[in-house]
Amino acid sequence: MRKAVFVGSFDPITKGHEDILLKAMPLFDEIVIGIGHNINKKCFFPLEQRLEWIEKVFSNCKNVKVKSFEGLAVEFCEEEDARFIIRGVRNIIDFEYEKEMAEANRNLLPGVETVFFYASPSLSYVSSTLVRDLISHGKNAGMLVPDAIKEYFINR
Amino acid sequence: MRKAVFVGSFDPITKGHEDILLKAMPLFDEIVIGIGHNINKKCFFPLEQRLEWIEKVFSNCKNVKVKSFEGLAVEFCEEEDARFIIRGVRNIIDFEYEKEMAEANRNLLPGVETVFFYASPSLSYVSSTLVRDLISHGKNAGMLVPDAIKEYFINR
Amino acid sequence: MRKAVFVGSFDPITKGHEDILLKAMPLFDEIVIGIGHNINKKCFFPLEQRLEWIEKVFSNCKNVKVKSFEGLAVEFCEEEDARFIIRGVRNIIDFEYEKEMAEANRNLLPGVETVFFYASPSLSYVSSTLVRDLISHGKNAGMLVPDAIKEYFINR
Amino acid sequence: MRKAVFVGSFDPITKGHEDILLKAMPLFDEIVIGIGHNINKKCFFPLEQRLEWIEKVFSNCKNVKVKSFEGLAVEFCEEEDARFIIRGVRNIIDFEYEKEMAEANRNLLPGVETVFFYASPSLSYVSSTLVRDLISHGKNAGMLVPDAIKEYFINR
Amino acid sequence: MRKAVFVGSFDPITKGHEDILLKAMPLFDEIVIGIGHNINKKCFFPLEQRLEWIEKVFSNCKNVKVKSFEGLAVEFCEEEDARFIIRGVRNIIDFEYEKEMAEANRNLLPGVETVFFYASPSLSYVSSTLVRDLISHGKNAGMLVPDAIKEYFINR
Amino acid sequence: MRKAVFVGSFDPITKGHEDILLKAMPLFDEIVIGIGHNINKKCFFPLEQRLEWIEKVFSNCKNVKVKSFEGLAVEFCEEEDARFIIRGVRNIIDFEYEKEMAEANRNLLPGVETVFFYASPSLSYVSSTLVRDLISHGKNAGMLVPDAIKEYFINR
Repeated sequence: MRKAVFVGSFDPITKGHEDILLKAMPLFDEIVIGIGHNINKKCFFPLEQRLEWIEKVFSNCKNVKVKSFEGLAVEFCEEEDARFIIRGVRNIIDFEYEKEMAEANRNLLPGVETVFFYASPSLSYVSSTLVRDLISHGKNAGMLVPDAIKEYFINR
Repeated sequence: MRKAVFVGSFDPITKGHEDILLKAMPLFDEIVIGIGHNINKKCFFPLEQRLEWIEKVFSNCKNVKVKSFEGLAVEFCEEEDARFIIRGVRNIIDFEYEKEMAEANRNLLPGVETVFFYASPSLSYVSSTLVRDLISHGKNAGMLVPDAIKEYFINR
Repeated sequence: MRKAVFVGSFDPITKGHEDILLKAMPLFDEIVIGIGHNINKKCFFPLEQRLEWIEKVFSNCKNVKVKSFEGLAVEFCEEEDARFIIRGVRNIIDFEYEKEMAEANRNLLPGVETVFFYASPSLSYVSSTLVRDLISHGKNAGMLVPDAIKEYFINR
Repeated sequence: MRKAVFVGSFDPITKGHEDILLKAMPLFDEIVIGIGHNINKKCFFPLEQRLEWIEKVFSNCKNVKVKSFEGLAVEFCEEEDARFIIRGVRNIIDFEYEKEMAEANRNLLPGVETVFFYASPSLSYVSSTLVRDLISHGKNAGMLVPDAIKEYFINR
Repeated sequence: MRKAVFVGSFDPITKGHEDILLKAMPLFDEIVIGIGHNINKKCFFPLEQRLEWIEKVFSNCKNVKVKSFEGLAVEFCEEEDARFIIRGVRNIIDFEYEKEMAEANRNLLPGVETVFFYASPSLSYVSSTLVRDLISHGKNAGMLVPDAIKEYFINR
Repeated sequence: MRKAVFVGSFDPITKGHEDILLKAMPLFDEIVIGIGHNINKKCFFPLEQRLEWIEKVFSNCKNVKVKSFEGLAVEFCEEEDARFIIRGVRNIIDFEYEKEMAEANRNLLPGVETVFFYASPSLSYVSSTLVRDLISHGKNAGMLVPDAIKEYFINR
């Protein structure tokens, strides 16, 4: 069985995350989305909310699970007994950062491999930061999040 | 069944190609290595030789096949009824080129997806061009090619 | 009057070129498209054909003219008495190359300034090279060129 | 009329900002410099001081205005009824960030276009951060700011 | 006499720092490692500890000295009467940042030159940040630091 | 004794090459400039001419020698018994290429190290290619080459 993890803070999940996951899905028998949780790092949306949104987005995908975790991504990977880490890259800043992390993870947990997908160009400007910025300024961010949770981001 | 193609001119296959393929192998049920063949483009090594070397390198991998093809990579992908294209990226020059190709292929053959792996840093300087350069100058290129075909590149 | 040149080999003009020009148009009173012509460099399509296609694409834009020129881009700029050079950038490879050219042109023709526009992400994979590749392999390239000349690239 | 905005925190305005504006000036009938103001984000210099310095630098340029604004850059653009956003790029880190913002702005305010200029190479090391660093260490930062306000940065 | 400085926060020193220094050593008669110290910026390890570790790592290298300093790197360079600044670059993010700093330093202290070395690819993922992350999560970070101080990072 | 090589085709030597060499000079006791010579690769200027120009430029520098060589750069380095290779980098395209070459050379000739210098920003657009382009179009290229040989590039 081919099992992968897809980790992040998903604060909140965007159309960009959804796009990468939809591309990765046919490649794996099971994907566990791991919401990184850090008591010392404050997030914009509460963990429960972020978890609920992701569950809603992938409610029809039986081979996608959502969990939260504390600690390092490789620890979560090990716990889940997954051999692959899924990552999306939008630009070269992402690329250099991800190259470093992939190599770190290879060294921290031998046998684990990072698999990359390019983000769709039409979504290249989408990020959780932009969603939070729009909401902070009282603007509509509905076009940046998955359709299934759009309603929460329109009339805020 | 998850089937992928891995295309290139493999002139000749290097430790870098082998490294990417070994990383991709656990992810697919079948990988077809496609040697791009173009009557108008002259290669350093004859097609038969390049094919033979790759076969030797993967002789123990039952789910790896080697073929040559003319035409575009996406046509080969379509012919083989493969849904995935495997690519390795070493640096940002590769990255930008591959991003463009991945997007072109998505548009030329909807449903096909490109899956990326980072090259191992210790092999980041390995390329077919360097092998050919060394050989042209009568130097040993054995450390740049897979162990299984090393002998052909030492006493040339 | 604000006058700019937009130079290239346009072999052939693509939707990418059209996109940049449409973005630049509201900014200038006159834009002269300059088809670089070099007797020693062989092009895929004859000069007359390339010129005709561009004229067709911009036939309704009174402030866009098309000309061919030999020599350097800055010489064309000087001849046309234009103060601005329009360029499109798709990725960082383009960016570094264009940065060098912009600076060279500033030094060769003081007073001339290069103005940049980002290509639309959905067209980031479009290039004249890809059009020529598709046509060389007998494939349809209609989706890569401006609608006004699409017909020439479908049933080739 | 061609109207553009040039936004930033200008904390403080540098020779780099001045350079971009001087390059953009011949292209527009009116440019509004917008100092982004955020009650929650602390700046090094007070808003009034930053505003005053910019006014001094462009006191002889009738088509340049200075304003402060709260909220998103596109909101300021909309308020000012400007169709163009001016940006300067120094290196590829800037480039990737600006590409993302330009695309976000295209989607948030259809019809607005971002116009880019390359910074002059001799000013590529100039930044507001460097000015603040020098001042924090009691050093002269006069060579980094426009000549018109140089005096404020020499004997601090 | 050729004298150089190698500055950083070394919080803590890593195998990456050691690698760059070993490469630079044959080129200089004296190298002074300068630990940047800033009362307002909190570090993970106390200054004395960081200093002690570096001294231990280079205890057998007579031409390497360790000092701490407050203020700008160029001020330290000037104080030490060193003409060269040693820097390591791992990737293009480093590269663009270092290019800017090198140029700033050239302008702040004419006559000083920055000399660059590429990090060894096998250490490209090593960083002080990763060491601190591992330690914060109670993990072994011994493989990331110089052998001479490894013991401090294993049983924490 | 610290000895370095600085290799290239120098077709012709530019102000950019001169700038890097002047920066490297205080660091080495001897620098040998190696003009790569390849019978199969046609150069714009004859080898003798390129050699003569470089000799003229550095006629007053006793620790700079000029030689031509066939074969690989590392072979020249070995022959000259030099332990260092000097390289200049202008942008990230150079950077990625040079990173690959530096690593290849480390592997081909253990003990040899590549030392990098950033090109001065004001010369970032200068290249041998631009010189040849200008000359091919009958233009003055005098501002791109060292002052000592300027006269050959003005009235061509």
